[in-house]
Amino acid sequence: MVGEPPAIEPVAAIGVIGGGQLGRMLALAAARLGFDTHIYATEAHSPAARVAARETVASLTDAAALAAFADACAVITYEMEQLPAGALAQALPHAVLRPGLTALRIAQDRLEEKRFAAQCGARTAPYAPISAADDLAPALAAVGTPAILKTRRDGYDGKGQRRIAHADDLAPAWAALGNAPCLLEGVVAFEREVSLILARGVDGTVAAYPLTCNVHENGILRQSIAPDIGDGAHGPAARAIAQTMADALEYVGVLGVEFFLCADGLVVNEIAPRVHNSGHWTMEGAWCDQFEQHIRAITGWPLGDPGMRCESAVMTNVLGADANDWPRLAGDGRVAVHNYAKGAPSPGRKMGHWTECRELKR
Amino acid sequence: MVGEPPAIEPVAAIGVIGGGQLGRMLALAAARLGFDTHIYATEAHSPAARVAARETVASLTDAAALAAFADACAVITYEMEQLPAGALAQALPHAVLRPGLTALRIAQDRLEEKRFAAQCGARTAPYAPISAADDLAPALAAVGTPAILKTRRDGYDGKGQRRIAHADDLAPAWAALGNAPCLLEGVVAFEREVSLILARGVDGTVAAYPLTCNVHENGILRQSIAPDIGDGAHGPAARAIAQTMADALEYVGVLGVEFFLCADGLVVNEIAPRVHNSGHWTMEGAWCDQFEQHIRAITGWPLGDPGMRCESAVMTNVLGADANDWPRLAGDGRVAVHNYAKGAPSPGRKMGHWTECRELKR
Repeated sequence: MVGEPPAIEPVAAIGVIGGGQLGRMLALAAARLGFDTHIYATEAHSPAARVAARETVASLTDAAALAAFADACAVITYEMEQLPAGALAQALPHAVLRPGLTALRIAQDRLEEKRFAAQCGARTAPYAPISAADDLAPALAAVGTPAILKTRRDGYDGKGQRRIAHADDLAPAWAALGNAPCLLEGVVAFEREVSLILARGVDGTVAAYPLTCNVHENGILRQSIAPDIGDGAHGPAARAIAQTMADALEYVGVLGVEFFLCADGLVVNEIAPRVHNSGHWTMEGAWCDQFEQHIRAITGWPLGDPGMRCESAVMTNVLGADANDWPRLAGDGRVAVHNYAKGAPSPGRKMGHWTECRELKR
Repeated sequence: MVGEPPAIEPVAAIGVIGGGQLGRMLALAAARLGFDTHIYATEAHSPAARVAARETVASLTDAAALAAFADACAVITYEMEQLPAGALAQALPHAVLRPGLTALRIAQDRLEEKRFAAQCGARTAPYAPISAADDLAPALAAVGTPAILKTRRDGYDGKGQRRIAHADDLAPAWAALGNAPCLLEGVVAFEREVSLILARGVDGTVAAYPLTCNVHENGILRQSIAPDIGDGAHGPAARAIAQTMADALEYVGVLGVEFFLCADGLVVNEIAPRVHNSGHWTMEGAWCDQFEQHIRAITGWPLGDPGMRCESAVMTNVLGADANDWPRLAGDGRVAVHNYAKGAPSPGRKMGHWTECRELKR
């Protein structure tokens, strides 16, 4: 492997931008491998910082704080794509940022995401950009109804979206989204939603998890089941798309690709340049979970085995007030519970998850 | 379950006395369940403190520091038995300490340990206490040679021990151990060494792991294999002894009991009132590992399933300079590696471990 940088060795510090549950689970995985984690978050005592060796509390555009953070870390990664890519690029000219800024820029803009998916040979929903009032009528003409109006940026867990049942709904919906740059997306007639989690190492090696079936409720992921019943039929195509994307981006780390699974095949919905909620089942269900896999990738370690170590795994998110009775949730001794140590639950807030692995009857 | 205290809920703080790898793995398990960990250690930046929300650095006899620590924690536990039980009792009169001081006092004194094992109906090696020069001859007469001279306190990983091949060796060996209070132990003709890890909850519920076979090298545990080939024949007796001990102590938490397995059955060697090196395989090999099990027990949560989730598991300690090539150790993608983030390796120092789970051929 001539020309590759040497692997990062313990006890070097891994920098993680973002202090939520994904950062927390990355820090726990990094700790297993002997790394220190340094969390950069906008609020103190974040779920991630409470299990990390070091913490920087600062704005995401604080150039001095970002530069000091970069100096303290052997490699930097992020747990969310809602980041100011420009500020990061300016503040971190010499830092090793994995995955890089290109993946971040594409994933944080639904228009760029759609174009990139098409470049990689994947299908997407029909769409039309809306940046001015003049765009409304042509967009409707191109996409039709029903459709979904989505802000190009800052949307997640169903936020920044409006359903458009009739043509008349579009202008008020756009106003309700603050006339922000948007995409009008055609509704895809899908059978179910699936995702593919893939890791790519510094040397270009790829490790992909089985296709996972995702069940949403009120726009929020509620349950993931692995493997999806269509893993045999559609898994190879999903893995090929994800690998084409990862190779095109010279990606290092874990990448999540969400698909609509339709009667005639896969349609790319979203790209997440990070560990992904639909991959949480890997913590108990795979030989090497997505969090450790991401740490292995960004430190230049060999990737772990993404194969399943049980017949099937079911991950269920614990949302809002369901989080108020953890000992009861933990009552089934074979179920693995994960509590994110967040504060008071609000409706729909992801407070934790639990995973059940099912074994072959022997 | 009338009369039991309610379970401790996240995000309460769990206090852990000791900053080594056992405290580190306890903190990581506590984090999964949503608890903060507060490490009390004599040195800053210990392996455990680097993954914990809070840290106290103070002497183990610092009454003010211990009291402040107790005030900050919902429950306190410890990762080692070499603790000043008297100072803890004085400083922590109102703290919830699990397991309690009685277990600590017994486990830290080889004479008390032997007497306690006998009270619980278990066999031990023949032994005689030595606290003065006058005790040497009667001890030799009672125990014979070959024998092992062991300090009553502060021995671990083969430290504080001398082999006594001939009667003449005893006086110089005792002098070499500083004429400290000792036990002369007869050598047990054992086939192999095994251990039984058991958890006991606040409500008296017990969960026991399969009997584990332990392979030592230079007095240090090198490898553990679960289940031991004699789990069927000797596991029930080992579990009965461990449960009798736990019940007698009104024990709460994980208890490790080391045995010599002889042609005529089990002989108790040592009792560890804590998570145990020979239980590390449970992290990948059991449904609920010993670290999470200990956290569940001391917080009053229901215990997890101690059953194995693979056919067999092999845990190998990484000692000294073997720790210098972690990415290579991690090269087999199905092997789980654990690095304790310690400083420079010294010969025989436990730097980490790796575990391989073996599955039934299907």
